[in-house]
Amino acid sequence: MVVAFKHYYMNKRGFASDNNSGVSPEVIEKIIEANNGHVIAYGDDPYTTRAIELFKKHFGESAVPFFVFNGTGANTLAISAINRSFNSVICAASAHINVDECSAPEKFSGCKLIPIETPDGKLTPELIEPHITGIGFEHHAQPKLISISQPTEMGTVYKPDEIKELSACAHKHQMALHIDGARLANAAVSLGLPFKTFTTDSGVDILSFGGTKNGLMGAESVVFLNNKFSENFKYIRKQGMQLASKMRFISAQFIAYLENDLWERNAKNSNNMAQLLYKKICQFDEIKITQPVEANGIFAIVPEKIIEPLLQEYFFYAWNEKKNEFRWMTSFDTKEEDIEGFCDTIKKHL
Amino acid sequence: MVVAFKHYYMNKRGFASDNNSGVSPEVIEKIIEANNGHVIAYGDDPYTTRAIELFKKHFGESAVPFFVFNGTGANTLAISAINRSFNSVICAASAHINVDECSAPEKFSGCKLIPIETPDGKLTPELIEPHITGIGFEHHAQPKLISISQPTEMGTVYKPDEIKELSACAHKHQMALHIDGARLANAAVSLGLPFKTFTTDSGVDILSFGGTKNGLMGAESVVFLNNKFSENFKYIRKQGMQLASKMRFISAQFIAYLENDLWERNAKNSNNMAQLLYKKICQFDEIKITQPVEANGIFAIVPEKIIEPLLQEYFFYAWNEKKNEFRWMTSFDTKEEDIEGFCDTIKKHL
Amino acid sequence: MVVAFKHYYMNKRGFASDNNSGVSPEVIEKIIEANNGHVIAYGDDPYTTRAIELFKKHFGESAVPFFVFNGTGANTLAISAINRSFNSVICAASAHINVDECSAPEKFSGCKLIPIETPDGKLTPELIEPHITGIGFEHHAQPKLISISQPTEMGTVYKPDEIKELSACAHKHQMALHIDGARLANAAVSLGLPFKTFTTDSGVDILSFGGTKNGLMGAESVVFLNNKFSENFKYIRKQGMQLASKMRFISAQFIAYLENDLWERNAKNSNNMAQLLYKKICQFDEIKITQPVEANGIFAIVPEKIIEPLLQEYFFYAWNEKKNEFRWMTSFDTKEEDIEGFCDTIKKHL
Amino acid sequence: MVVAFKHYYMNKRGFASDNNSGVSPEVIEKIIEANNGHVIAYGDDPYTTRAIELFKKHFGESAVPFFVFNGTGANTLAISAINRSFNSVICAASAHINVDECSAPEKFSGCKLIPIETPDGKLTPELIEPHITGIGFEHHAQPKLISISQPTEMGTVYKPDEIKELSACAHKHQMALHIDGARLANAAVSLGLPFKTFTTDSGVDILSFGGTKNGLMGAESVVFLNNKFSENFKYIRKQGMQLASKMRFISAQFIAYLENDLWERNAKNSNNMAQLLYKKICQFDEIKITQPVEANGIFAIVPEKIIEPLLQEYFFYAWNEKKNEFRWMTSFDTKEEDIEGFCDTIKKHL
Repeated sequence: MVVAFKHYYMNKRGFASDNNSGVSPEVIEKIIEANNGHVIAYGDDPYTTRAIELFKKHFGESAVPFFVFNGTGANTLAISAINRSFNSVICAASAHINVDECSAPEKFSGCKLIPIETPDGKLTPELIEPHITGIGFEHHAQPKLISISQPTEMGTVYKPDEIKELSACAHKHQMALHIDGARLANAAVSLGLPFKTFTTDSGVDILSFGGTKNGLMGAESVVFLNNKFSENFKYIRKQGMQLASKMRFISAQFIAYLENDLWERNAKNSNNMAQLLYKKICQFDEIKITQPVEANGIFAIVPEKIIEPLLQEYFFYAWNEKKNEFRWMTSFDTKEEDIEGFCDTIKKHL
Repeated sequence: MVVAFKHYYMNKRGFASDNNSGVSPEVIEKIIEANNGHVIAYGDDPYTTRAIELFKKHFGESAVPFFVFNGTGANTLAISAINRSFNSVICAASAHINVDECSAPEKFSGCKLIPIETPDGKLTPELIEPHITGIGFEHHAQPKLISISQPTEMGTVYKPDEIKELSACAHKHQMALHIDGARLANAAVSLGLPFKTFTTDSGVDILSFGGTKNGLMGAESVVFLNNKFSENFKYIRKQGMQLASKMRFISAQFIAYLENDLWERNAKNSNNMAQLLYKKICQFDEIKITQPVEANGIFAIVPEKIIEPLLQEYFFYAWNEKKNEFRWMTSFDTKEEDIEGFCDTIKKHL
Repeated sequence: MVVAFKHYYMNKRGFASDNNSGVSPEVIEKIIEANNGHVIAYGDDPYTTRAIELFKKHFGESAVPFFVFNGTGANTLAISAINRSFNSVICAASAHINVDECSAPEKFSGCKLIPIETPDGKLTPELIEPHITGIGFEHHAQPKLISISQPTEMGTVYKPDEIKELSACAHKHQMALHIDGARLANAAVSLGLPFKTFTTDSGVDILSFGGTKNGLMGAESVVFLNNKFSENFKYIRKQGMQLASKMRFISAQFIAYLENDLWERNAKNSNNMAQLLYKKICQFDEIKITQPVEANGIFAIVPEKIIEPLLQEYFFYAWNEKKNEFRWMTSFDTKEEDIEGFCDTIKKHL
Repeated sequence: MVVAFKHYYMNKRGFASDNNSGVSPEVIEKIIEANNGHVIAYGDDPYTTRAIELFKKHFGESAVPFFVFNGTGANTLAISAINRSFNSVICAASAHINVDECSAPEKFSGCKLIPIETPDGKLTPELIEPHITGIGFEHHAQPKLISISQPTEMGTVYKPDEIKELSACAHKHQMALHIDGARLANAAVSLGLPFKTFTTDSGVDILSFGGTKNGLMGAESVVFLNNKFSENFKYIRKQGMQLASKMRFISAQFIAYLENDLWERNAKNSNNMAQLLYKKICQFDEIKITQPVEANGIFAIVPEKIIEPLLQEYFFYAWNEKKNEFRWMTSFDTKEEDIEGFCDTIKKHL
């Protein structure tokens, strides 16, 4: 959980969240391009058709994407697509769906979440198996979905083989595997692999694929990689309040993201900047990095004395207040000078 | 209910829906302006602060607005803000919440909708009173909210006195009055009155105020005019999957809409174009206009023979298929030439 | 809707509701018989096995019954068994599920109810067809279930052919047909037909079959007649809070009801008593019977002057307060002397 | 979680569950007594009035009880009475609401459950406090209720001081304290204290009070001890499908239970029999008792070789299959000879 120390740090690039950043210029351009006359609302338009083609290019022909507004919507509706209300979802205790959605999954799907403690945000079959119990026993919510975050909320990244093990585990138990891919581009860049390799080709059934945290304005999606589950999803999306009337403007963002290499350029920058920040922070003996830096998040335990002065100049969130552990996120627009400024400020107060 | 005859009519301005139109250039400009560095996500940013000020200017100091993604979200969450699950909502049978939300209000709020048949989409205390029954009787869902659409789905507009009578009726029964104002600007222009007069000052408790149908990209809101209901709404919005991370880009749209007169200019154009279309259609004896044209919608019964040929060139929706009744909507970007082209096509096929 | 005039009329047999009556002695006997040592809880016991056999005897081998606590539970869970949350239920406006369940069906299933006005509580394909619209259109809750009450809330009874027409209508549209059979025994006796004829053999898919109103203590059921829908129902019942731990005591009631002819004897008495009451009431010119008396309910418009004095001596419910229309129900334990006493009291006050 | 090894052990008293036992004769007598003519349905009857008086005698004048069908209903509706859907419930990981209700609480209330691992099923403020986080932060389900089981699912019993500490912890954070008292009588007998001392007088706000596991047929209740929460509960109970029409037969059970000392006699017998079983089992060195025996449950790790033969003669449930840990429950009707028979069988197979 993340508690805000409230301030405005007007328009200054910082390390609080990739959600605090703005939008890549290419995205605005595509929006302007799509702003041309009338097209049918709710997705029956050529921009959405084009965006769907691009999803199929990146995730394979079997991919059936549905565009939605935000990550809470994508995750909650993905769960509702797979599960009936008497099913349960196995996830890491640190998962966004467990910690940061204000119980939206439980409310909308009726399902129980089974949170599992992990050292680094990553689930394994060994951690999961003991929780697949009570099958056929009506008193027990029936496990039906394993949900992982890629990269995890701790900034760690699953290897394709780890994902294959999880999908095998899920399928062995007639369950499905879901990825919360709000930052999937950062994982792809970290792995140096195309999306398809560690999603469709690794047995993932359903994916929340987001672009908002990587330079889009507000464009997320539920992608069925194994399309047996997609049949009724159009109704679930509408009833779930996630069907955009002027859909073309979400689709235009995904066109900008996926047509050329914007997703990759943006994620590369934020991952690279995270590495740079990591290296510079390592020079401060008083600061302890607590997780491997594999995507664009850095977790660090910070000396008490610098917290308040640092927060005067940079807004960011506590990850674990009791341990003085904080989270710093780099972003598609982070510049070297931002990292230098931040590290200089740290140095000044140490 | 509206059934689609499917086609693409690529980028050609038509009369199917104001949702089919694009975005006013001023909106894009404000979005670009807001795309400046980092600000705190989820609404704790200066653009949202400014947009909230503008809502207070238009709806009064008591107004507490919350921005959401779409109309389904605004209406469903407004109901959930006022009602507990054992309450019911009295609405016109033609109301969007009853017909066009795929049961999103029932699913999320748990409430029953009490649909009332009306000739013109407008509720009155006389129509409502017989349905306020079973108060205190636990077998009966307890009426708690009256919901009206302004303008109605039939394109008719409530006068302030009619709204005052409805709010008096609601308050007499310890109920609240909600307006679905997805096209509220069209009503304001039609009445020639500021928003506040026929909302806050007419006893309305809660409002879904939308801009998407009038030239915004995707910006809707739940506005508490009587703020005793707003306390927990931030949780309801988040759990309802309607909290935008990059909120500033919704807020920027509302700034463009409300800071100058964009809302008014756009609504005036669509209302004026509806009047022009109405006048021109009246010249065709074979076409029967079925509702007063008070906002930007025209309802017309059309001879069988012209339906197919007309739909070949213009996409639009049936309102009542059995009666060959269709709905034509004008929009902020409708031009005189569009109406001439449409009427020429009608003429050709009559 | 039914509004209570509150009083106690301690242990006096009246005509307010068959729910006000007690329990047949045979039922108590079977409960005592089942109260023997330990058996496995939640239905895995020989009494439940026996009761299920009896259901199969009466409804056919395909019948799969699940026992629940009450009618609200049976109806709400039956809807949830057939529908997903984006589906709708077509029912009479007078249906118990629409009027008297405090929105339990909407809350638990998420579905919309489509209430249809009827003169006598009976639906027909002609009344239903116009409401089967918007199929495949994601904005519209998708009709999936037709629900009828047999007998209706107005005390009228569907003939088998009428039910066959309704099931044909449902199946033509890939929908299912549900009967709310809270008083199904009264219908069977009225028709002089075995249950199976006008349920399973008439194409009914799912049935709420109740005994509580006809001499049981508290025993209702959801019966799948077309068992393709029953697969997950054990989870729905448990999650729906309707799984009894000491199930044997519900099962024992159904054994008493169905093993011999208790269901028939009880229903015959109440139907016969309704006919007797009907005949006697017909002698009062000032009282107008408003519905055919086909089961155990009588609906009558009563002169204003006798209402209050009559309610001083007999508790009963208004059906339509505005019209001074009241409902009188006979019951399994109604005696001729009760009817005479009631009619004498009416006479006295007329 | 409890997995069933399926068999019938027809009418033989065993140690599988207190739910497998039948009904005290006094209960049947009271039911027969209440089976007298007509009374108003749904609880407006003299038996219910009398039962409510008895609750007030045992729990204090402030107690407002509502009768329901089963424990799942009582717990789920208690949560819904206190919480809005964006709230969370803190409970032991072993709690019945977390493990054995098939996600009924999540489905009906929309709330998240926060399960906390405990050694013995008992929560403490120290265990709870770290989970009361994110207050006011809209991304986080807001903790509102602490729910404990008394006795716990492990058969341990909270002392009044422990409950006072928990209620103080709850109230300090504007939360409420709920007891799942499905076996509250066993706790009262174990503590040697009246119910009121360790509920109302210890700051408990709301209670699920059950009798079914202690000799009743099917009678549970939600009791508001701090009545500020009870206002709307009648609607919640009805919408929650837990309102009995022939309520008098639930009330009669509670009269039998509370009017004299039936609750106490029954619980004393089962607690005493648990002590006897405990003592006898202690003589077997190969069997390891894993929890203090404070109520009527015994948890034991059993040698592999005796499991199958023992299950041939006695049905009971595994508590932790991996560890060969089983649960044995004594009951109101357990006799010394039953324990001797069971221990002889164990001895034979060891």
